Amino acid sequence: MDRPAPTSGTPGDQTDLVPLTLGTIAAWCGGHVDGDPDTVVESVRPLDRADERALGLVADPRYVAGVPDSRAGAILVASELVERVARIDDRPRLVVDDPRAAMIPVLVRLDPTPHYEAGIHPTAIVEHGVRIGEGTSVGPWAVLERGAELGARTRVGAHCVVGRGARIGADGYLHPHVVLYPGAVLGDRVIVHAGARIGSDGFGYVFEEGRASKIPQIGRAVLGDDVEIGANACIDRGSIGDTDVGDGVKLDNLVQVGHNVRLGAHGAFAAQAGVAGSTTVGPYARVAGQVGLNGHIEVGANVTVAPAGKVFQSVPEARAELMGHPARDAHESARIWAAEKRLPDLRKRVRALEKELEALRLRIDPASG
Amino acid sequence: MDRPAPTSGTPGDQTDLVPLTLGTIAAWCGGHVDGDPDTVVESVRPLDRADERALGLVADPRYVAGVPDSRAGAILVASELVERVARIDDRPRLVVDDPRAAMIPVLVRLDPTPHYEAGIHPTAIVEHGVRIGEGTSVGPWAVLERGAELGARTRVGAHCVVGRGARIGADGYLHPHVVLYPGAVLGDRVIVHAGARIGSDGFGYVFEEGRASKIPQIGRAVLGDDVEIGANACIDRGSIGDTDVGDGVKLDNLVQVGHNVRLGAHGAFAAQAGVAGSTTVGPYARVAGQVGLNGHIEVGANVTVAPAGKVFQSVPEARAELMGHPARDAHESARIWAAEKRLPDLRKRVRALEKELEALRLRIDPASG
Amino acid sequence: MDRPAPTSGTPGDQTDLVPLTLGTIAAWCGGHVDGDPDTVVESVRPLDRADERALGLVADPRYVAGVPDSRAGAILVASELVERVARIDDRPRLVVDDPRAAMIPVLVRLDPTPHYEAGIHPTAIVEHGVRIGEGTSVGPWAVLERGAELGARTRVGAHCVVGRGARIGADGYLHPHVVLYPGAVLGDRVIVHAGARIGSDGFGYVFEEGRASKIPQIGRAVLGDDVEIGANACIDRGSIGDTDVGDGVKLDNLVQVGHNVRLGAHGAFAAQAGVAGSTTVGPYARVAGQVGLNGHIEVGANVTVAPAGKVFQSVPEARAELMGHPARDAHESARIWAAEKRLPDLRKRVRALEKELEALRLRIDPASG
Repeated sequence: MDRPAPTSGTPGDQTDLVPLTLGTIAAWCGGHVDGDPDTVVESVRPLDRADERALGLVADPRYVAGVPDSRAGAILVASELVERVARIDDRPRLVVDDPRAAMIPVLVRLDPTPHYEAGIHPTAIVEHGVRIGEGTSVGPWAVLERGAELGARTRVGAHCVVGRGARIGADGYLHPHVVLYPGAVLGDRVIVHAGARIGSDGFGYVFEEGRASKIPQIGRAVLGDDVEIGANACIDRGSIGDTDVGDGVKLDNLVQVGHNVRLGAHGAFAAQAGVAGSTTVGPYARVAGQVGLNGHIEVGANVTVAPAGKVFQSVPEARAELMGHPARDAHESARIWAAEKRLPDLRKRVRALEKELEALRLRIDPASG
Repeated sequence: MDRPAPTSGTPGDQTDLVPLTLGTIAAWCGGHVDGDPDTVVESVRPLDRADERALGLVADPRYVAGVPDSRAGAILVASELVERVARIDDRPRLVVDDPRAAMIPVLVRLDPTPHYEAGIHPTAIVEHGVRIGEGTSVGPWAVLERGAELGARTRVGAHCVVGRGARIGADGYLHPHVVLYPGAVLGDRVIVHAGARIGSDGFGYVFEEGRASKIPQIGRAVLGDDVEIGANACIDRGSIGDTDVGDGVKLDNLVQVGHNVRLGAHGAFAAQAGVAGSTTVGPYARVAGQVGLNGHIEVGANVTVAPAGKVFQSVPEARAELMGHPARDAHESARIWAAEKRLPDLRKRVRALEKELEALRLRIDPASG
Repeated sequence: MDRPAPTSGTPGDQTDLVPLTLGTIAAWCGGHVDGDPDTVVESVRPLDRADERALGLVADPRYVAGVPDSRAGAILVASELVERVARIDDRPRLVVDDPRAAMIPVLVRLDPTPHYEAGIHPTAIVEHGVRIGEGTSVGPWAVLERGAELGARTRVGAHCVVGRGARIGADGYLHPHVVLYPGAVLGDRVIVHAGARIGSDGFGYVFEEGRASKIPQIGRAVLGDDVEIGANACIDRGSIGDTDVGDGVKLDNLVQVGHNVRLGAHGAFAAQAGVAGSTTVGPYARVAGQVGLNGHIEVGANVTVAPAGKVFQSVPEARAELMGHPARDAHESARIWAAEKRLPDLRKRVRALEKELEALRLRIDPASG
């Protein structure tokens, strides 16, 4: 099969790369090296899984004690922890303020995501009227329906279906098995993981005598730039308007976004969260896993919702912190949860009070008994 | 590529249609026109997204104030709101009792869902013993396994797999990437969205010393007529009997239906709801998103469950309204939620009562202190 | 076809099998027969759906009364119920200690899961460097990317994508539409249902001024032996280490497993449950549907979590039983739920106490009023 060859992704792909040294990485990420800056490393790994060619990661105090037992060839350590590590270990160290951020350039180089060369696989179906930018890669069994548009350098994985008139910007990456319904619009640098469905019909019916008549859904799903959508996530098209997903929004696996929803820029929604139809969420949301946002509500900017929080009503003010079912201010929920634990005890105390009060009343006024 | 040509779906497809006028729509949906009934429109849109060729929708009082600023060529307005609109705007109006219902015939005409012409794409695999009705459309890379049956005018999208002996009735629509496991049965006019899995194995094991042995699942998933299944939803086959989804049932995206479940006719289950194994739900259920119905329970007719309600026990009586975790009668849950908010305060009041009572007791009977 | 529904392979598949008699089944499963041991049966069915060629199942006391009305040709009954059945019915009976376990060998024989013959479908794409064991079956439109490995007798369904360097052990079964991301590792006898995604990127970002930068995810998803993964479930790859799913773990449909999670051996996670990133769960977990386990926590061996329980904090001790939102010890949650129901009443009682106490105080010390 004439599949485009990758430019990286397997060990053999990297033999022509220059070696990665601690000094090089320090220059990339603004850190410094304790020890030999020419120490060569090939990956970043947790301490207990690192070998001699790996940087062992120490980003949290609880990992410090494990340093001496690690087989790592060098240590990637947060600057606030370096003194503690230096006391018990003398391997070369790369010292940075934020190890997670420092890892990114290294990880980008190690990234196993295949980077296919440009080209359209001979098995792909490209209907008439499709426009394809330069450097685009289309995988086997993909279907690009009539009028679809792919921006430059966008990769479309195996089996993807890009529906009629759907548009993808530049530098996109559709992993295998993605379906874009007709008319869906994706901005630049959008990543969509396997099995995500973008632009499916919203759940819209008119009920008459308990029976549902489908309201055709003719709006679009419109995603901004730099969006990432998790595996098997679903974003419905608008009913008559659009469903809008703002720039920089990240949705995790199995997230649901209902029709006409508007998600503000740079929000993050963890796995299995759901946003019901016609709800508007402000920018910079931090929504944990299994959270539910009710339909037809408004949620303000910079909201934080704790895992599984169920938000029933609008919370338009900015910077709300919500938790619980129903979701309330996180501190209030914490107080209620603490009080709940003592609720059986509280009932006993009230019963005791009732008895004591009755006894006291009888002492004062025996005739009332 | 020799893909079957569509009969609609892009603007060009509709050039031979007569223009859509307010008068025509009014005749379809039983409304009346204020202004020129020959005003031509091409779509229905939210007020703030409508252009001169669109009907702007005013179905809710909060949109009235936005009418003057809309670029809509005409207004679709609920009869109860028409006086308020007429005071501030003089564009042509289509006045109806229920704008959402009135939109349906218009939206059907604008529906972007591709309507493929009959034909089997040359890349589709049709195994022996498959029976295909008249006017059926089978998309690219579809697999119809041996003994599968497709009713007349049913459309099977790209990459769908119709397992051995599975049956689909007439006028069905399988969007791309649907999998019907062997033996699944779908009635007439069933719509299945991308990525739905129908007839997957139930979660059935025998545990011995903590280890699970799989119980083969040999029952079927049986869906009635007029069912719609959302994207990436899952319906398990029965263990030894059937999983039954009644006529007219609508499941939203990412809904889970366990083995042996029986869903009564005309129920609606919103996104991410789940029904655990062997549970029976009566007809006309209204189940909101992220609701969970426990396994092996019975839920009566016309039940309503609020978003994320978790129903642990049987609720056999009809017309139950449930809410909360655990789900209780909605009014009871509302009272509990209100009382919870005052629970920290209640604890303080009890503490104060205890102190006061002790003080009082000491006054009456100082020797007891 | 003799079977009431096309839920098994095809008639031809079974014509060469010897008939199945009660005596044969009794020998397989250690039971005994009351009546003619040569009675032939073809399936096991619920009592109300059994016909003359089926064993009707009586595994629970509530089904005893339905025996006389069943059309079943014979009865499969738990030994503890046989006396009650014998009093009201004289059909042949197969008597066993555990009917569900006894069914397994019968059901294995009736299993509708297609058993494809070995071979690679001519439409499958097999890139260079792929290693395929003996007796392996690869379905239509499958893609085996470079360096992928398939163990002996493993079946890969239609449209599956096995990413670069991914490995599947022996006797595996990937149903249609499964995607293994590059580098995923599956042990022996692993079953993966339609639409599951294994090795997708974890939800890892560095936030700077509220904007998310993707942390490339370079770890693997590693599944042990005898694992089963439900339809449309998602398992993320590790960030820099691995996500580990232990031997014998069973995940139901739509389950989410985040990056770096470690699931101990033989755990069972029902539909729509989610385990957030970096959490460790001990062996033998019993996790019900819609449960959420928070990220970065530790859960001990043999944990039980009731449906929709939301576990926020570590529960390292073994045999914990959890329930509720937030999840607490199940008995404690039950007490709180009972007390909650009386919370509105409790508030009234406290109000009454306050009034009575005030009245009493005024009697004792009128000047204080």
